[in-house]
Amino acid sequence: MSKLKLDISISLDGYVAGPDPSYDQPLGVGGEKLHEWGVRAASWKEAHGYDPAEGETGTDNDVIAEQASSYGAVIMGKRMFCGEDGPWGDEPFEGWWGDDPPFKVPVFVLTHHPRDVLELGETRFEFVTDGIETALERARDASGSDDVQVSGGANVAQQYLAAGLLDEMQIHIAPVLLGGGTRLFAEGERQPNLRVARTIESPAVTHIRYEIER
Amino acid sequence: MSKLKLDISISLDGYVAGPDPSYDQPLGVGGEKLHEWGVRAASWKEAHGYDPAEGETGTDNDVIAEQASSYGAVIMGKRMFCGEDGPWGDEPFEGWWGDDPPFKVPVFVLTHHPRDVLELGETRFEFVTDGIETALERARDASGSDDVQVSGGANVAQQYLAAGLLDEMQIHIAPVLLGGGTRLFAEGERQPNLRVARTIESPAVTHIRYEIER
Repeated sequence: MSKLKLDISISLDGYVAGPDPSYDQPLGVGGEKLHEWGVRAASWKEAHGYDPAEGETGTDNDVIAEQASSYGAVIMGKRMFCGEDGPWGDEPFEGWWGDDPPFKVPVFVLTHHPRDVLELGETRFEFVTDGIETALERARDASGSDDVQVSGGANVAQQYLAAGLLDEMQIHIAPVLLGGGTRLFAEGERQPNLRVARTIESPAVTHIRYEIER
Repeated sequence: MSKLKLDISISLDGYVAGPDPSYDQPLGVGGEKLHEWGVRAASWKEAHGYDPAEGETGTDNDVIAEQASSYGAVIMGKRMFCGEDGPWGDEPFEGWWGDDPPFKVPVFVLTHHPRDVLELGETRFEFVTDGIETALERARDASGSDDVQVSGGANVAQQYLAAGLLDEMQIHIAPVLLGGGTRLFAEGERQPNLRVARTIESPAVTHIRYEIER
């Protein structure tokens, strides 16, 4: 069976977003520092509609290129999709990524509020209202033999981890202390065993892939 | 001037000790998992009075050997020395390390309770009651041109970090989730900028050295 993988950037003090997130600063104060290593990479720029010639090549770029071609479906939470909980409203937000989002595979958005399928460029967003297991089942159907990626946010990652459904985590540890915000890992009694599968060093960030004992 | 360096092991979720520490389990539930990579190394066994031939060689052992010869004085908190706060009592505990502790350099123990110097083997413990800056001054005097190591616990590390006195942190990230306990990093507004100076990968733990912008 294909794997369910989390891929996410965190600060050294464990946050996926800084304090006080807002529409203008969806990653909270300082949160963009977690992704500086990524957004300057050529692969990121190409996937997001910018000129890859203006991006950097090298180790971090290779990690992004590898990761972007490694999944056949994506799962994310509503807050990652649009920055807030709650009903969709009359002219619902279509995500942060413009007319041609970088995913190019089916994306399953976990939400409590039903919404019709949204097709943007090569990406199809489906909104799943009946929980993480259903989202995973639909993502596996869509991805075939390819892996399914959980992209965040923290709450969705925590739900899959706590349910024992994650096979792998690739954590990008940025050399940043945020001092507050949203933590990736929740407190709790049941913690799975991990194994370091791969470490890739770069001056900008440390990429560690953990396998999770099932 | 010599550097002030923190050297400490943490879990992937940011803890230096697990929940519910006790005399029998000073590192809390699961906390010993943070140090498994270290205590099986030949250098650790030798420094702690065991037969190094029963220890492992390799990357993690090299990191320990390097680190153990890299400082001329150590600073730690009272809880790291003896597991608890409060007055010393009539027959005060002499630390976790037996008759010949592994430090072999002057160790400055931060405490609110005065105590005479304690000499054990080649290690001299001095108890400092007037705060982190005095402890650092005395440690620098004792270490000469060698670096001073802050060994923990979290509270002492946080105090030096918040005061802007730390030059470097070597963080050993163990592939462990503890789900609770004592966090290395405190929440707070003032966070220094970091730079990844070196990453050493091993299957058991990821060793990352961060330089701290002053």
